[in-house]
Amino acid sequence: MLHQQNLTVNAAGHLALAGVDVLDLAREYGTPLYVLDEDMVRERMELYVAAAREHLPAGSRPYYASKALCCKALCRMAGEEGMGLDVVSSGELYTALAAGADPADICFHGNAKTEADLRYAITERVGLIAADGEEELLRIVRLAGELGARARVLLRVTPGIDPHTFAAVNTGVVDVKFGVPIPGGQALAVTERALGLENVDLAGFHCHIGSQIFDAGPFLLETDVMTAFLAQVRERTGYTASVLDLGGGFAVAYEETDAAPDCAGMIRAIGQRLLERCREYDYPAPAVLLEPGRGIVAAAGVTLYTVQNVKRVPGGACYAALDGGMGDNPRYALYGARHSAVVADRAGEAPDCSVTLAGRCCESGDLIGENVAIQTPRTGDTVAVLTTGAYNYSMASNYNRVPRPPIAALRGGKARLIVRRETVEDVAAYDL
Amino acid sequence: MLHQQNLTVNAAGHLALAGVDVLDLAREYGTPLYVLDEDMVRERMELYVAAAREHLPAGSRPYYASKALCCKALCRMAGEEGMGLDVVSSGELYTALAAGADPADICFHGNAKTEADLRYAITERVGLIAADGEEELLRIVRLAGELGARARVLLRVTPGIDPHTFAAVNTGVVDVKFGVPIPGGQALAVTERALGLENVDLAGFHCHIGSQIFDAGPFLLETDVMTAFLAQVRERTGYTASVLDLGGGFAVAYEETDAAPDCAGMIRAIGQRLLERCREYDYPAPAVLLEPGRGIVAAAGVTLYTVQNVKRVPGGACYAALDGGMGDNPRYALYGARHSAVVADRAGEAPDCSVTLAGRCCESGDLIGENVAIQTPRTGDTVAVLTTGAYNYSMASNYNRVPRPPIAALRGGKARLIVRRETVEDVAAYDL
Repeated sequence: MLHQQNLTVNAAGHLALAGVDVLDLAREYGTPLYVLDEDMVRERMELYVAAAREHLPAGSRPYYASKALCCKALCRMAGEEGMGLDVVSSGELYTALAAGADPADICFHGNAKTEADLRYAITERVGLIAADGEEELLRIVRLAGELGARARVLLRVTPGIDPHTFAAVNTGVVDVKFGVPIPGGQALAVTERALGLENVDLAGFHCHIGSQIFDAGPFLLETDVMTAFLAQVRERTGYTASVLDLGGGFAVAYEETDAAPDCAGMIRAIGQRLLERCREYDYPAPAVLLEPGRGIVAAAGVTLYTVQNVKRVPGGACYAALDGGMGDNPRYALYGARHSAVVADRAGEAPDCSVTLAGRCCESGDLIGENVAIQTPRTGDTVAVLTTGAYNYSMASNYNRVPRPPIAALRGGKARLIVRRETVEDVAAYDL
Repeated sequence: MLHQQNLTVNAAGHLALAGVDVLDLAREYGTPLYVLDEDMVRERMELYVAAAREHLPAGSRPYYASKALCCKALCRMAGEEGMGLDVVSSGELYTALAAGADPADICFHGNAKTEADLRYAITERVGLIAADGEEELLRIVRLAGELGARARVLLRVTPGIDPHTFAAVNTGVVDVKFGVPIPGGQALAVTERALGLENVDLAGFHCHIGSQIFDAGPFLLETDVMTAFLAQVRERTGYTASVLDLGGGFAVAYEETDAAPDCAGMIRAIGQRLLERCREYDYPAPAVLLEPGRGIVAAAGVTLYTVQNVKRVPGGACYAALDGGMGDNPRYALYGARHSAVVADRAGEAPDCSVTLAGRCCESGDLIGENVAIQTPRTGDTVAVLTTGAYNYSMASNYNRVPRPPIAALRGGKARLIVRRETVEDVAAYDL
């Protein structure tokens, strides 16, 4: 049940995260409450930074995919731990800069950046802009010209790997909204075009094959396809890329039945394969960028809720109604994503009940999980939903005008808020 | 294509909502932009108010289910048009009160109200609190006692109608997080308990059978079940209910292939059936409350986006990348809900293209629709996604830290903002 290394049961029988009794946190900050084990976040960041330094070519570096959990504190942590920042909107760029990030350490992504986004990124001289296709590349050229600046760009390509099976797609159909397909020759053609453009420097290429990748296999296939593409581009144009951004996708164990992925091992395997291929092609090894987001924060996060009532429907489910729901964690409603949970008050007891964790929103589908194995819940209990550090706060809404919860971070056994709780006044603040 | 009565094509060939050229709105307020035809909202409110007055027993009234679109302006409109307000959180109650609503006109719903919610509702003396079960009823009794107040309550019951097929469920399994089941006798038992409690007055019962109901049939079944329950309660306890809240669920035509539901006709049919049953049971006809939300605002709303780029994947889809997405309209990602769309610049032309409307979020599943029949889109076009007045703004998130769009309301051909656009500073305002 307690499959995360940072979860324990203390002497009182309560759940502790990073050694801190979560009932104390619920009392101090109220519920719902996002809690983040900052020590673990920093360890995960260090792990990626060290693995990149050890196993990847010179200049390689992980960029924190801030969309997983973006706030100033996370941007500061990434900077302090030596990671770059991957941002996908003016809002994320603003957050990073407000947190003191060096623009040179930022890569701006996205399939539909607006002119305002691009102007902002160019004006602030972010280190890299990943152009999603020829049209955007030409827009960057125009805007950089208007702004009297140069932009350092990556071209986002789609390597033709099926995101679900991770098999190479030979038909050339890479049917996603992102990037320019390598199969079929579009990516090569756009690259040739890019090399003749003013105001932009093509630093290299970006790709991303999917998420929740548990072993190195798909990354090795990606490395194969991308190095072959680099060699093809050089053969055709003489251009040598200095950067190869392989994106993110490092998996996270959401339930106790999930194996814990070995991220450092995957990065080592990627590095070995890359060097092999570069030797074969006699290609100077490019700096590799990786973009972990979920892999940094998911397992470091827990969400605390208070049970408002418990309802047993004769012949139906046992419902524990929580004071949060799809507003603060839409992942079950959106993806059917399963999270383990614990009654924090009696975390030492074995789960003896299969429960539907119901949210507070006025919608039948507002559930946090069904058939969740948990200690029999009682009204007033604190329920901890595990592995919620990624894509919970960042996707949270004010559905039903429920204020979004705060985030408390734990460092060295001490808690502090890194995002404050919204109030009902905040929720109505934009109404005219 | 233009199946909504308030949509036309003007002399310039542009889409007009309530006679207003939407390209002018996009220019004035920017995109993404929610636009709401306030005249239509008020007409819809009048329609429900008039139908309730004409076809339902004395004292009957529609309550606007504000969760569909909650902001101060909508609460004011509901009040001005004679509707009550259904709120489901402290945030919605705060909004209603800040908009000047009379607490007596408010009904507070929800399956997991917190103590803070209940204290707020009792202190403000809202007209009705729908208690979701015995446990909540007892909590209301305690809190009302502590606050020296009385609470007027409805008991939420589940009538045992399958929300998907609208057939009566005879097994007694009503497996939802809301309410107390009538089949099996729980509802009767809780009612008997409620009648002996201090500090609360039981005004009657509340139920809700589902959403997107296109004809009167399910409501008539609901009326049958609920009147039989009223008669059973009276027989057992002598108690006569003065209020019967039949909830919402009135359908909306989201696509041109959907039939336009006849809401007034449904309400007339409900009224006739109710009076028949009350005569049979010799039961004094209770005031009927109805809770339309979607039926008031959905068809009055349109969302305007600017096409950022158009991408044709060889052998795959044509993608039009928009400057919004699942952040401002999560309905496709959540429910696969289909909305019609129009290229507003060339609204007079026939749809000649099947397009994937891609959102701007850094996630492959961030789509507004697939296989959407639309005029061939070009970069810079304004795309209007139709029937977005309900559950778009109210469910919107800041995913990817994208600021939420404003809402412009159109009244008598004039536009004004009723919710302002968020800024990147707003999005980061709670970061510490």
